[in-house]
Amino acid sequence: MEYNKEHIQALYDAANRMRISAIQMTCASKSGHPTSSCSAAEIVATLFFDEMRYLKDEPKHPSSDRFVLSKGHACPILYAAWEEAGHLTHEQVMSLRQLGSDLEGHPTPRLNFIDVATGSLGQGLSNAAGMAYVGKYLDKASYRVYCLIGDGESAEGSIWEAIAFASHYNLDNLLGIVDLNRLGQTQETLFGHDVEKCAKRFEAFGCNTIIVDGNKVEELLRAYRCAREMKGKPTFIIAKTFKGKGIVNIENENNWHGKPVPLDTIASIEAQIVNKNGRGKLSIKKPIDDAPSVDLNIGNIKIAPPAYKISDKVATRMAYGIALAKLGDVCPRVIALDADTKNSTFSEKMLDKHPEQFIECFIAEQNMVSVAVGVACRNRAIPFTSTFAVFFSRAVDQIRMAAISFSNLKCVGSHAGVSIGEDGPSQMGLEDLALFRAIVTSTIFYPSDAVATERATELAANIYGIVFIRTSRPATPIIYENDEIFEIGKAKVIRQSDKDQFLLIGAGVTLFECLNAADELATDGINVAVIDPFTIKPLDRDTIKKHAKRVGGRVITVEDHYPAGGIGEAVSALFGEENGVRVKMLCVTGVPRSGPPDMLLDLYGISAKAIIKAVRYFN
Amino acid sequence: MEYNKEHIQALYDAANRMRISAIQMTCASKSGHPTSSCSAAEIVATLFFDEMRYLKDEPKHPSSDRFVLSKGHACPILYAAWEEAGHLTHEQVMSLRQLGSDLEGHPTPRLNFIDVATGSLGQGLSNAAGMAYVGKYLDKASYRVYCLIGDGESAEGSIWEAIAFASHYNLDNLLGIVDLNRLGQTQETLFGHDVEKCAKRFEAFGCNTIIVDGNKVEELLRAYRCAREMKGKPTFIIAKTFKGKGIVNIENENNWHGKPVPLDTIASIEAQIVNKNGRGKLSIKKPIDDAPSVDLNIGNIKIAPPAYKISDKVATRMAYGIALAKLGDVCPRVIALDADTKNSTFSEKMLDKHPEQFIECFIAEQNMVSVAVGVACRNRAIPFTSTFAVFFSRAVDQIRMAAISFSNLKCVGSHAGVSIGEDGPSQMGLEDLALFRAIVTSTIFYPSDAVATERATELAANIYGIVFIRTSRPATPIIYENDEIFEIGKAKVIRQSDKDQFLLIGAGVTLFECLNAADELATDGINVAVIDPFTIKPLDRDTIKKHAKRVGGRVITVEDHYPAGGIGEAVSALFGEENGVRVKMLCVTGVPRSGPPDMLLDLYGISAKAIIKAVRYFN
Repeated sequence: MEYNKEHIQALYDAANRMRISAIQMTCASKSGHPTSSCSAAEIVATLFFDEMRYLKDEPKHPSSDRFVLSKGHACPILYAAWEEAGHLTHEQVMSLRQLGSDLEGHPTPRLNFIDVATGSLGQGLSNAAGMAYVGKYLDKASYRVYCLIGDGESAEGSIWEAIAFASHYNLDNLLGIVDLNRLGQTQETLFGHDVEKCAKRFEAFGCNTIIVDGNKVEELLRAYRCAREMKGKPTFIIAKTFKGKGIVNIENENNWHGKPVPLDTIASIEAQIVNKNGRGKLSIKKPIDDAPSVDLNIGNIKIAPPAYKISDKVATRMAYGIALAKLGDVCPRVIALDADTKNSTFSEKMLDKHPEQFIECFIAEQNMVSVAVGVACRNRAIPFTSTFAVFFSRAVDQIRMAAISFSNLKCVGSHAGVSIGEDGPSQMGLEDLALFRAIVTSTIFYPSDAVATERATELAANIYGIVFIRTSRPATPIIYENDEIFEIGKAKVIRQSDKDQFLLIGAGVTLFECLNAADELATDGINVAVIDPFTIKPLDRDTIKKHAKRVGGRVITVEDHYPAGGIGEAVSALFGEENGVRVKMLCVTGVPRSGPPDMLLDLYGISAKAIIKAVRYFN
Repeated sequence: MEYNKEHIQALYDAANRMRISAIQMTCASKSGHPTSSCSAAEIVATLFFDEMRYLKDEPKHPSSDRFVLSKGHACPILYAAWEEAGHLTHEQVMSLRQLGSDLEGHPTPRLNFIDVATGSLGQGLSNAAGMAYVGKYLDKASYRVYCLIGDGESAEGSIWEAIAFASHYNLDNLLGIVDLNRLGQTQETLFGHDVEKCAKRFEAFGCNTIIVDGNKVEELLRAYRCAREMKGKPTFIIAKTFKGKGIVNIENENNWHGKPVPLDTIASIEAQIVNKNGRGKLSIKKPIDDAPSVDLNIGNIKIAPPAYKISDKVATRMAYGIALAKLGDVCPRVIALDADTKNSTFSEKMLDKHPEQFIECFIAEQNMVSVAVGVACRNRAIPFTSTFAVFFSRAVDQIRMAAISFSNLKCVGSHAGVSIGEDGPSQMGLEDLALFRAIVTSTIFYPSDAVATERATELAANIYGIVFIRTSRPATPIIYENDEIFEIGKAKVIRQSDKDQFLLIGAGVTLFECLNAADELATDGINVAVIDPFTIKPLDRDTIKKHAKRVGGRVITVEDHYPAGGIGEAVSALFGEENGVRVKMLCVTGVPRSGPPDMLLDLYGISAKAIIKAVRYFN
């Protein structure tokens, strides 16, 4: 097909105007990535002003095509595109990287045209795959998802997890473009300019692959058309480009990563622009308005109440599965994702009951989390991811970026602590509370029985933001009535009397160790209060403080977790600013071994026996 | 080539004896993975009793071939191989998963024939690649490295990072075998039994690939020979096998992952053994003894002293690079690894001076960390990995497994905190202290000037174990004399007087904010003590406590980090068990923005101004 020559020239002109803007804004901010921007100028210009369908004044429109800049450091070219589209003013783009400007050094959703924060490399494609999954299977709509990937970041394994995922789920509404500009931060990338080598890998992963000169408008347009026509598999365009394309003496040179270039280099770029008055003349294609409107009903989701009998034994991970399926009953947009552990986490209950609300992510936790972040975008679904608690440590960076994305991500980790027993340390979640507490915007539930777990799951769906729910492997007794009311940041005082001398705080398996210790101590005339915190973040400061003071300031925390960043430190920090309370921490303090759960609780000093000893020796 | 028929049968017999052992030990432990073991019986038998060269009584011999069981849950078949070799007794293997037995649920180096802990999937190949790199480029020896990979775990991106690495560095001494047994934990894997699909991916990543029937001894032996003859690239054998191979009614069936099978299934396996007295008759090939002996001199490594002038401004990341190159001068087995950030972390100084002691790992932090763990194996080298502090969050699971491996891994993270400025939150290390503190065996340095940084780097090389060094982007003043002595767990009291009313604790950029605050407060007649902790883990409990009490129990911690798991919580926990000290934490409490470093310190409440305010309002 022949393209209109004036239109082609207009796209080149737009690309060059965007280049100039990218150079100007990074000169103004005295930092940033103009060369990584310039390689992609034609790619972004052709996407925004020929290929993509969107409303420039309503970037989040349900039927608008999506664009993810996985190589987030190239954001000047993206900001320039929105300037070219007329959504941002030149003054706005010139505020790049200034304090208070939403045009940050790497893109964040503080901007209304950004769905996900990028800048930690190798994650954007998974986000895009999540959006494409929603588009194809939930929305069943026409919008397409575009993702610009750097060649350097293609070394990240998470990219290959995303490609395998997109290929497995036949995401033909996803188009990835690799900006193969040869140079990474410090040297040539793994691919250099070997387009065939790169294409071969994408092809082997089951994708449609097209090689183009990525600085040639016609080749890009032709490739986009092929991609649109390809059914049943995602397309990846391997675009050979030059870093710093168009910048005199800097194009294709090393040592120009992440720094401004001389401002006078814009002259020769300007000279190439044919239509000097072309800005704003390119039309933007309108979306095909066929995406359904979605109301997630966050804050008002109600599931069928728990139905357990006091003292029956049920694992909290099992209760999670039950609650998840109930969420599926009432909210068709609650989506469960798992990494081939669904019969351990019990997310399989969603698969059994609502198969269309379950995404198997195979053993690729990084991609699972970032796909979930994509699924959550524009509030089109609420993703609940699950695996062993310890394997979320595989995706800490993805969860961190989810926080920067202000994502509505839910993570549910089973198999907490040494109480898993014989499988040994590699499978024991002993850092998970520390990792999730460190995510600055997180809420953390650590429910201790099945009733509390169902309520935690329901609450998780009803708040917007990152949630972690910690579940346990062993079956433990039901201690709460089915109509017990749970709230975030409200602890339960399980045991108390007028004569309490100590306050014990435990959660999950250790709560039961606290209760057993309390029983035994009572027979010796030592009364202790026992608190179940329910949420570890936020902690119920008031209740814990009140009871700590009531018992004379003697607090013992007991957790199936390492010391750093766990319950003990969180409780200690509560009392950091005041006197009169002492906190003794019982926790796992070395790399544990395989063995029966009860013996391990004992060996690592978090059993009833250890608690009784700590009470007796509290000085 | 034709193989001797008796020998072939003897290998089948060995495989079947190993199957029986694997079934017996998992029946005894009432848990474990017999089916994942049985698929690999012929693979492991042929490796151990035909292909590999090793000393069964000295598994760690420098010239012995290495074997990594990346699919760690299949360890019963590995333990059975060492039983077959005569290294373990039947009684020992029957102690599988019992408390106190080193034969844990997943392999750990508590066993002398295990180099690296496995069980968190997708990491073993990177470990193996690290060992192969050392074998080829440092030891220049004949030993080969073998890695058994599961098909389920091949979904992990880290596997593809490892393959790309092995291919890029032409690791022809590495042989990977994919046990394509079709079934994951809960369903068919991404590959199923499609050997071609799997092989195509490995081939596209630049590897020699051989497809075999993995339960056929002759095919395996032939493939091993081809692999040995292949020069310039690693070989991967795609071995089509059956999960539960040989177990009646269970072979190739779903729902038999990770559970014992009926003990009476061994009868039909036993019936297939031709030579009932064959145990111990297979010979084991001796190593070619050409690996050099290595003495890392840990504890006695001395580098040239720092050479700075007081008040000169030098970034601690720069000082790290300088010290690293000095370590290179005195220890040819200190190896630097970086993930395409070497001109930011300054690890490039090693590359410049000792190029053979530098491994570029490209943007693949997971693989970098696990390769480093491989490099450290058998004390053949000391690996120093570096990237931005925040990007170690990409490899938390790998670092966690390094702790379970008792590895001598060093991690150096630059660009800590909001003080990096304009690049924005995606590049800011604000959880890194929490993450590394949560690694139960870690030591954490947070040096505040270049002198301290050089000493931290030297100390890191001189202790065995996991170390994290946090460095900063901005240049900060030299405050220590070049001959200042630094020790792990010893803080420096930078400012003190008889009239101190407060204790300020800061590190890196915030130490200088504390000093500026101290100066300004002094002009108002308020004296404060200032402590530089030097190591965050362990903290100098004695010095901090002494000065906290001396100033009347008013402590303020200031850190360029989020609250959870950082310096403030660590200090609070120090005082958890005693009264009379109050700790006020100043830290970053929300997702930050791009902006100039100084303005960000101020905005997020960790500048001198914020400290002065905290002092004035301390109640």
